[in-house]
Amino acid sequence: MRKVNEARRVQKRQAILDAAARCFRRSGFRGASIADICAEAGIGAGNLYHYFPSKEAMVEEIAEQDMERAAAVFDQLDDAEDLLGFLEGNPELFNDTGYAIDDVLFLEIVAEATRNPTLAAIRRRIDARIRMGLREVLENARARGAISPAVDPTAASWILLTLFDALSLRRLVDGPEEATRGTALLMEQIRRILQPTDGDSA
Amino acid sequence: MRKVNEARRVQKRQAILDAAARCFRRSGFRGASIADICAEAGIGAGNLYHYFPSKEAMVEEIAEQDMERAAAVFDQLDDAEDLLGFLEGNPELFNDTGYAIDDVLFLEIVAEATRNPTLAAIRRRIDARIRMGLREVLENARARGAISPAVDPTAASWILLTLFDALSLRRLVDGPEEATRGTALLMEQIRRILQPTDGDSA
Repeated sequence: MRKVNEARRVQKRQAILDAAARCFRRSGFRGASIADICAEAGIGAGNLYHYFPSKEAMVEEIAEQDMERAAAVFDQLDDAEDLLGFLEGNPELFNDTGYAIDDVLFLEIVAEATRNPTLAAIRRRIDARIRMGLREVLENARARGAISPAVDPTAASWILLTLFDALSLRRLVDGPEEATRGTALLMEQIRRILQPTDGDSA
Repeated sequence: MRKVNEARRVQKRQAILDAAARCFRRSGFRGASIADICAEAGIGAGNLYHYFPSKEAMVEEIAEQDMERAAAVFDQLDDAEDLLGFLEGNPELFNDTGYAIDDVLFLEIVAEATRNPTLAAIRRRIDARIRMGLREVLENARARGAISPAVDPTAASWILLTLFDALSLRRLVDGPEEATRGTALLMEQIRRILQPTDGDSA
């Protein structure tokens, strides 16, 4: 009996998070009310507070789930003998597909975080973790000779993250028809930053 | 008499735009009401509509004024014999100082444009013009040998704009203390993209 309740609870939690993400995308973080989220999730308003104390807590949990997905991607990158070739062969890694925090929600959170200190703190924590994950990927890749030994993993992880964030932003401005071209330009840029050159073999 | 009225009108228009920019930064585009903007500008609500039909029209005019400023920067870049040295010596060019659309307002407009087609169209128009201006700067720089002849101005202008947008975004996440470091990393990146190499002299 207890097990069934726990399973239902987990399911309901997830339904709330999915509904919240849809509402935030549609109306903005501020524009989406708790009542909107309850209606979208099909639960009573009093009930929602048993799951999440605030919209900020929902964003944090949504980001947490995306982090698990990102960690799996980082593991894939660690396993790739030819890191640059792997990235080039899997352009979907640069797209927001599969993340709850897609381009729209990402920009909304960054914009709203300028006015909401709690959201800003969540954003900074997540950002620091992604950056650290990326730095480790680069350290490992450097150790196995998959990227230039001249790469500084700390600086390069910042630049790469900046480029990924920028691609989110450009996709929204340029529209989907330009996205493929944007990804190709980004990949070219990544090669410039990471690719081993003849001089590296020294 | 007419001249005085015209001068007052121009002044009032500007006061409304300045007030609107402050309100949008503080409460978001959607969160800032026409009444808020009137209160901030110190004018009557009925009066505002003599100047601007909508908040979108205010954003467009604010962006238009920023474009004039950007055009002046492009002229400076065209005059710089050593383009990369000039950029390096003037890091304030990478900051939002002096633009009404600062980092906060920029992100707010991009985020809100995902839900507001009029704003999205304004954003796309402005973006296309900045990109064209940047492309011309690169074409001119290439013609006078200030950057590598291998640079494709169309692709490079896209990448540079993406990097500038990204810097806006990163400044909001990283905070001001990291902004200087970010600008330096960005400049390094720009060098990689534009700098003439020994192979170019062929």
